[in-house]
Amino acid sequence: MNDSSSSRIVDDLRVWIGTAAPGARLPATRALVARYQASPVTVQLALRTLIGQGLIESRPGAGTFVRAVRTARPADYGWQTAALRAPRNRITPVSTALRDAPPDVIALHSGYPDRELLPERLVRAALTRAARSAAAVSRPPVAGLPELQSWFARELAEVTPAGSTAPLPSDVIVLPGSQSGLSSIFRALAGPGQPVLLESPTYWGAILAAEQAGVRVVPVPSGPAGPDPDELARAFAETSARLFYAQPNYANPTGAQWPADRHDPVLDVVRAHGAFLIEDDWAHDFGITGSPTPVAARDDAGHVVHLRSLTKSVSPAIRVAAVIARGPARDRILADRGAESMYVSGLLQAAALDIVTQPAWQTHLRGLRHHLGARRDLLVTAVREHVAEASLDHVPAGGLNLWLRLPDGTDLDRLARDCESAGLLVATGDEWFPAEPTGPFVRLNYAGPNPAAFPEAARILGRVLRGGR
Amino acid sequence: MNDSSSSRIVDDLRVWIGTAAPGARLPATRALVARYQASPVTVQLALRTLIGQGLIESRPGAGTFVRAVRTARPADYGWQTAALRAPRNRITPVSTALRDAPPDVIALHSGYPDRELLPERLVRAALTRAARSAAAVSRPPVAGLPELQSWFARELAEVTPAGSTAPLPSDVIVLPGSQSGLSSIFRALAGPGQPVLLESPTYWGAILAAEQAGVRVVPVPSGPAGPDPDELARAFAETSARLFYAQPNYANPTGAQWPADRHDPVLDVVRAHGAFLIEDDWAHDFGITGSPTPVAARDDAGHVVHLRSLTKSVSPAIRVAAVIARGPARDRILADRGAESMYVSGLLQAAALDIVTQPAWQTHLRGLRHHLGARRDLLVTAVREHVAEASLDHVPAGGLNLWLRLPDGTDLDRLARDCESAGLLVATGDEWFPAEPTGPFVRLNYAGPNPAAFPEAARILGRVLRGGR
Repeated sequence: MNDSSSSRIVDDLRVWIGTAAPGARLPATRALVARYQASPVTVQLALRTLIGQGLIESRPGAGTFVRAVRTARPADYGWQTAALRAPRNRITPVSTALRDAPPDVIALHSGYPDRELLPERLVRAALTRAARSAAAVSRPPVAGLPELQSWFARELAEVTPAGSTAPLPSDVIVLPGSQSGLSSIFRALAGPGQPVLLESPTYWGAILAAEQAGVRVVPVPSGPAGPDPDELARAFAETSARLFYAQPNYANPTGAQWPADRHDPVLDVVRAHGAFLIEDDWAHDFGITGSPTPVAARDDAGHVVHLRSLTKSVSPAIRVAAVIARGPARDRILADRGAESMYVSGLLQAAALDIVTQPAWQTHLRGLRHHLGARRDLLVTAVREHVAEASLDHVPAGGLNLWLRLPDGTDLDRLARDCESAGLLVATGDEWFPAEPTGPFVRLNYAGPNPAAFPEAARILGRVLRGGR
Repeated sequence: MNDSSSSRIVDDLRVWIGTAAPGARLPATRALVARYQASPVTVQLALRTLIGQGLIESRPGAGTFVRAVRTARPADYGWQTAALRAPRNRITPVSTALRDAPPDVIALHSGYPDRELLPERLVRAALTRAARSAAAVSRPPVAGLPELQSWFARELAEVTPAGSTAPLPSDVIVLPGSQSGLSSIFRALAGPGQPVLLESPTYWGAILAAEQAGVRVVPVPSGPAGPDPDELARAFAETSARLFYAQPNYANPTGAQWPADRHDPVLDVVRAHGAFLIEDDWAHDFGITGSPTPVAARDDAGHVVHLRSLTKSVSPAIRVAAVIARGPARDRILADRGAESMYVSGLLQAAALDIVTQPAWQTHLRGLRHHLGARRDLLVTAVREHVAEASLDHVPAGGLNLWLRLPDGTDLDRLARDCESAGLLVATGDEWFPAEPTGPFVRLNYAGPNPAAFPEAARILGRVLRGGR
């Protein structure tokens, strides 16, 4: 990562701090910007690093000060390793997709859309209204604000075919983000040691949540047309699993969308094995050349547990999602949510409801479709021109990512490091496989900042692949 | 619960809905208020009930409509009970402390302070500022906003004695509420089947989180002076537990505060058994005749895992808390948080930091101390006057609750029902015991709405105890 200017400031300030009195005030950011000829963002990054190291502290409104370090005794927490015993799961480092990127790097690694793709004015206005409402000082029910439950239920009801029973508002549980939903679903519907089938490759957060819940992860290969129903049936039969986690629309990372005629055959297999399909509809708002139809619309016997998030399309600050489930499954998930977090901030729920019920939200989604399409096409063109060695089997009809297969034998770790040195962040594919990766892949996010740099990004990737820097 | 007027409206509207066309619009709330001679709150309660039953739906800005029910086929989700297998833990109903109370009932059952005790203007102003800031559209790090980490670390550092190493900002993990912290701590530091010692009685939410994590709950009796160090040592020795959960200051439900000379003996026992003290400092802002000193201030070897929440004192909408831990324990908790919820809304974190760094926050806390004291004294006086049969062993120096022992042989379920019929909600004590209750207790919250009704509440409780209604 090219953060040399920030680490240069850290090194220099550390020397200064070493000679300063505890409580001494640091120069203002503006002065540091001038002194180091760096951007305010770079200076802030340096200050945050020093805060994290405990060397300085920021007192909002007052300034930044040298911290009074009380002792220099190095701490030894070795006794804890006996108390904690061996970890049940491997302790996973933070995913590449969550890394912050310095502003001077081309960031194709992230899982989140750039700020320019968010409905920023809607978000700010809704939060301001919510700040004035009762939601700012009250506690909502465990399952969520009734009006927001209704909205989620109605969205799914609107695509439920005639003759099927649409979900009720009481089938909806509001969540503080879909990651919490995944954790609760795996804990509440499976539990330690139980087998759970996962599409492979699939969302790294789902793999992480499954591992945390202690379930046994069983990969089921899935291609551009979704999983093969026969393969799925064999996996159910072999493992006695009762849960199958999948992303039927614009899967992360591959962008695959199950064709409409694949929904019923997969559901038939799920039903035949008395099982649940956990449908992660994460990209519901990210259709480009089509709109996603949830598989949940075709089920009213409680076989599909539907997960729908607003966080990525509305704002990372609006940590609101929902799970829609029926019967005892819904009750078990609700009990887990109650024990885990009791309730979701009513302020965020009120703001989310406000945003998605504005006419401007629909306008925003139409614009988003256009922007995502343009960005996707720009990156596809650039990759095809500059990374001829890679194969892009599938141009996704929605979602945020391209899934690129690199030549066999590519050293992915080295590739990622070399790209980073050259100013490009990519996410290597290994994190998306519940078991072994089936080849060297990278995921390229086309929803990040600065799409004008996509051609340059592709040039860097091509150059690094060919052994250059 | 005296919600007869609301159920009367539900029953009547249900008949009307049965004859109305799908999509028909219900009369406006104002019209319903007039028609039923009921308060707007009661009418809203009735409408929410009908929304939850799927009979009507509310479209914000447009009105309330009869829902188009697509089929009347009753659903049978019986197959799920085979797929889900027996639950690992009992499925706990929602705690009494989380029940919503109709406005015409005296509510001493809740665990939350009434709105009039919240810094409402500060909360609204901070949320409005946060809505305009970058926090409204950006994603903070997994461990929290660095500035908020610093604030939590500094608060504890300020009471850390000279010669001890104060916590660093990087020792702080920001949480979406302390319930999430409890769940993560039990999962990350113990795990399924491992013994965990809990003060008894103790917070029901901690018992719930421990059960959800699948740990083995071992009660350690704790009185007004905290746990007996010898008893604690025996429990550690017998069980090989490495975790002890306690609330040293203003414990919920008893209000007990460990005397200062009890901190070191308990810590010595914890250290001698190579264990952790999970210090739940839930009432940090609720001191009345003193201020709490966290036990964590006396430990710099990583034995105390400190949990501090802002939700109860700031606002239920500001779902922000923090765990402060060092060494591998901190790393394991952070890994669990990453898998469970990835990050906490930066908007709520920015608003929380804004509030607690305003000078007006300190002013608010001084006023709160005064209000809580007056309310506590009012309820104590009323209980002593009207409930002579009960014994109030301990008048708490802080917190939100009185813990009242009733005469032996009191039928608590019946008492709660009879009180409710007479217009009073209380929380029976059973939920606060990890094992058998050691007597018939009720918890009376003196921070709820309408303290003027405390004498009437005590009269009702006394009358019900004496067999009347």
